[in-house]
Amino acid sequence: MATAVLQETPTAKSLYEASSKPETLAQLVAPLRAADIAELVNQLQPARAGRVLANLPFDVAVDVMDEPELDRRHDIVQHMDRGIAGALVAAMAPDRRADLLRELSPGKRKAVLATIEEPDRSVLNALLVYPEGSVGAIMTTEFVSVAANTTVADAIERVRILAPDVTAVYAVYVVDPVSGKLERSVHLQDLLLADRNAPISSIGDARKPLSTSPLTSEEDVARLISKYNLVALPVIDDSGRMIGAATVDDVIDAMVRETTEDVQRFGGVAALEVPYLRISLAGMGRKRAGWLAALFLGEMLTATAMGYFQDEIARAVVLALFIPLIISSGGNSGSQATSLIIRALALRELSLRDWWRVAVRELPTGLALGAVLGGIGVIRILTWQHLGWYDYGPHHNLVALTIGVSLVGVVTFGSMAGSMLPFLLRRLGFDPASASAPFVATLVDVTGLVIYFSVAYAILRGTLL
Amino acid sequence: MATAVLQETPTAKSLYEASSKPETLAQLVAPLRAADIAELVNQLQPARAGRVLANLPFDVAVDVMDEPELDRRHDIVQHMDRGIAGALVAAMAPDRRADLLRELSPGKRKAVLATIEEPDRSVLNALLVYPEGSVGAIMTTEFVSVAANTTVADAIERVRILAPDVTAVYAVYVVDPVSGKLERSVHLQDLLLADRNAPISSIGDARKPLSTSPLTSEEDVARLISKYNLVALPVIDDSGRMIGAATVDDVIDAMVRETTEDVQRFGGVAALEVPYLRISLAGMGRKRAGWLAALFLGEMLTATAMGYFQDEIARAVVLALFIPLIISSGGNSGSQATSLIIRALALRELSLRDWWRVAVRELPTGLALGAVLGGIGVIRILTWQHLGWYDYGPHHNLVALTIGVSLVGVVTFGSMAGSMLPFLLRRLGFDPASASAPFVATLVDVTGLVIYFSVAYAILRGTLL
Repeated sequence: MATAVLQETPTAKSLYEASSKPETLAQLVAPLRAADIAELVNQLQPARAGRVLANLPFDVAVDVMDEPELDRRHDIVQHMDRGIAGALVAAMAPDRRADLLRELSPGKRKAVLATIEEPDRSVLNALLVYPEGSVGAIMTTEFVSVAANTTVADAIERVRILAPDVTAVYAVYVVDPVSGKLERSVHLQDLLLADRNAPISSIGDARKPLSTSPLTSEEDVARLISKYNLVALPVIDDSGRMIGAATVDDVIDAMVRETTEDVQRFGGVAALEVPYLRISLAGMGRKRAGWLAALFLGEMLTATAMGYFQDEIARAVVLALFIPLIISSGGNSGSQATSLIIRALALRELSLRDWWRVAVRELPTGLALGAVLGGIGVIRILTWQHLGWYDYGPHHNLVALTIGVSLVGVVTFGSMAGSMLPFLLRRLGFDPASASAPFVATLVDVTGLVIYFSVAYAILRGTLL
Repeated sequence: MATAVLQETPTAKSLYEASSKPETLAQLVAPLRAADIAELVNQLQPARAGRVLANLPFDVAVDVMDEPELDRRHDIVQHMDRGIAGALVAAMAPDRRADLLRELSPGKRKAVLATIEEPDRSVLNALLVYPEGSVGAIMTTEFVSVAANTTVADAIERVRILAPDVTAVYAVYVVDPVSGKLERSVHLQDLLLADRNAPISSIGDARKPLSTSPLTSEEDVARLISKYNLVALPVIDDSGRMIGAATVDDVIDAMVRETTEDVQRFGGVAALEVPYLRISLAGMGRKRAGWLAALFLGEMLTATAMGYFQDEIARAVVLALFIPLIISSGGNSGSQATSLIIRALALRELSLRDWWRVAVRELPTGLALGAVLGGIGVIRILTWQHLGWYDYGPHHNLVALTIGVSLVGVVTFGSMAGSMLPFLLRRLGFDPASASAPFVATLVDVTGLVIYFSVAYAILRGTLL
C-alpha cells in the first residue's frame, strides 16, 4: 500500500514489544532504515539501547549513531563497552561527533578529545568553536572537492574513493589548486553527462557558487537553501577556502527545531529541547514557571491600576462587569498583530525600518476592528436592557457608549502595541519571537484598564461617577 | 566576502532602482539567479513585470516563472503578449503550471485547458485533481524512470535525454517493465560509480524504496523527507506505479508555509496567504475580524458571569481589583500548555491516545505553577498591607488567602484546559493548531471568574460577603 510508510513501521514496533533480549532485538531491527532503528532505540533505557547498538552490524550501528533523530547519544555511549564505544565514535560523521562532545561537561570533553587521534582531533576542535545555532555547528566536513585542473574522469574517480566516507554526494566542489578558494560547484548530474576527458572547470554553472560563512545562523542558511532550491550550501572561511557544507537534511532538522522554539516561545514557554513526554516534571515546571512568574509580576500592575479606580468601581459596579471583556479584546487584537509581525520578520518580508509602514497599516486596521467589536458590544448591552435580561441602570445608554468607545481605544492600542513590540525587541537586540501572546496580553491589560476607566470618567462624570 | 550572498544582491537592487525601461531592466537582471530575478520582479506592477519577463532570454524567463517565490504569476501572464505568454506557460514545469491554473476561476481554467495540447493537458488535469495541501499538488511529474532490465549505460543515456526537462536529477527510478511498479531508487552517485554494463536492478539500495500516495498531506511528506534525510520521495498511485516525486525544495517551501499558518493561527488570525505588506487593508481586516468577533462573543460570557457576582463585588470592591490578575494567569498557563501540546502533536511526539498521559502530567504541573503564583500573590498583598502602601481592609489575611487559593485553582484549570483542548479539537476532526492563545484565554477567563468568586464565597462568607 502506498501509505504504508506513514504508519511508522508497525511491524517493527510489535516485534520490538515481543522480544526482550538485546541480541534478538538487534537482529530484528537490523534490516530497518537507520531512522526507524533510532526511533525504536529512543524508547529503550540507555543501558539497553547501548546493548542493542553493540549487537547491530557495525556499519548499521554507525548509521544509527549518525541519525539526528537519535536521542541521548551520550548516555548510550556511556553505557557501552569502551572498545565498541570508541570504534563507533571514531566512525561517526564529524558533525555528529561534535554534537556528542557538546553534550559533555568542558572537563570531560577535554579528556575525551585527548584520546582522539589527529587529524580527527583538529577537525573536532574546529567544529566545537562554532556556537550552537550557527551553520558551523551543523555543517558536514566530509565533501568531495577537486582541483580546477582535474579532468571529469579523475573527479569521478575521486568520488569513488571518497564515497564510503561521504554519506550522500550531490555535488563536486572545484577549488583553485594554489589558493584553495572555492571556484564552482558541479552537480553530479553534470558530471555524469560530461565528456570524461573534459577539464572539470569547463562544466556546470560558471557563476561563482553561492556560499556562506560558518557563523551564519541556521535560519539564514535555511532561507538561502529554500530560496535557491539547493541541496547543499558550501561553507567557506574568511579566505574563501571551503571548510564544509550545510546539507538540506540538517537544515530541515534545524528548521523543525526553530519552529518548535518559535511556537513554544509564542505560547510563553522557554524552549523545551526535549519531547514533551520525556522531560521530567521538575524540568517542565522550571521551563514554565519563569515566564509565568514574570508575566504575573507584570500583571500585578493591573491590581495597582484597579486600586486607583476603586472608588469609581464602588460607585458604578456595572463598570466592573465589562473589565474582562474589554482587556481581553485588547490582548486578542495584540496577539493577532504580534503573530503576523513576528512571522513576517522571520521570513524577512519585513525589516526593522519597515516599522513605520506597519504602524500606518495597524492604526486604521485597529480602529476598524475596534469599531466592529464596539458595535457588537453596544448592541449586546442595549438588547439585554430592552429585552429585560439585565438591568444596566438608568444610564444604560451611557454605559453602552462607554463600552463601545473603550473597545475602539483598547483594540486600536492592542493592534499598535502588538505590532510594534516585535520591532522594539529586535531594535534592542532581542529575538522578536520573544514577544509571546501572554507578554502582549499583559502589556495591553494594564493600558486597557487605564483607557477604559478614562473613557468611563469622561462619559459618565456627573451621572454614574 | 563569505556573507555577501546574504545581502540579497544589493547591486542588483540598486541597478534596478536606477533604470526604468523594461528592456534595460531585463538586460541587467538576466545574469542573476532565477530566485533573485523573481524577487525583483515581485516588486514591479504586473504589467511591467510581464514586459521585463518578455525581454529576458527565453530559458531564463521560464526559470523565473518556475520559481515558487514568484508572486502573481497569473496577473503577470495576463499582461503579456499572448504568443510569448503561451510559449512560457507551455515550457513551465507541470506542477507550477497547475499552480497557475489553480489561480483561475473554474470557467477560465477550462478555457485555458482547452488550448493546451495533449499529452500536457492530461498531465495538468491529473494534477488539478489533487487538493491544495496534498503532496499531489506540489509533486513534480518530471522524473527519470527506467525499466528494471536496463543497463547502467542505457540509464545514463536516459538521464542525458531527459536532463533538459528535469530541473535536477537526484535519482533514477527503476520500474518493473511489465506492471510499471516502482522497484528501486538508484542514487545518481551509485549510477556514476557502477559498472556501465551492469543491469540497473543490481545497483543501489535493494530495499523497496520509500514512497507515498498523492493524497498524503504536505506535512506528512515533510516529516518523511526530514526523518529519512531524502532529497526526493516517489509518489505512487494505488497500483504502485510512480506518478511523480516530491522534491525537498518544494517540501521546504511547504514547511515554511505551514509554519506561517501555524504561528498566525496560534495568534488567532486566519492564515494570510500573502506577505503582510502586500495584503489590502480590507483583506487584512477580514482575516482578523472573524476570529476577533468570535472570541469577543465568547468573552461576553465573562460579562454574564460577572453579572451573577455583581452583589459580591458591590459588597467587597477589593475583589474586583484582582480580577484581571487572576484570569490572565489562567490564560497564560493555558497558552503555555496549548503551545507545547500543539507542537508535540504536529511533530507526532504525541498522538490522540496520549491525552491521558498528558492530563496526568499537567495536573501536578498546574498545581505547582499555581502554588508559585499563589505564593507570590499572597506575599504581594501582605507586604503592601504591612508597609501601608494599600489598605485591603480588616480582613486582608482572608483576602490574601482567597487570591492564593484562586490562583492555584485557576492556573491548574488553565493548564488542564489548555493541554486538553488540542486533543479535543483533533478528536472532533479539527486541526489542533486552531487552539489559538486567545481562544484558550477566552475559555479560561469565564471559568476563572467562576473559580475566583466561588473561592471568595467559601472563604469570605460571614466576613466580607
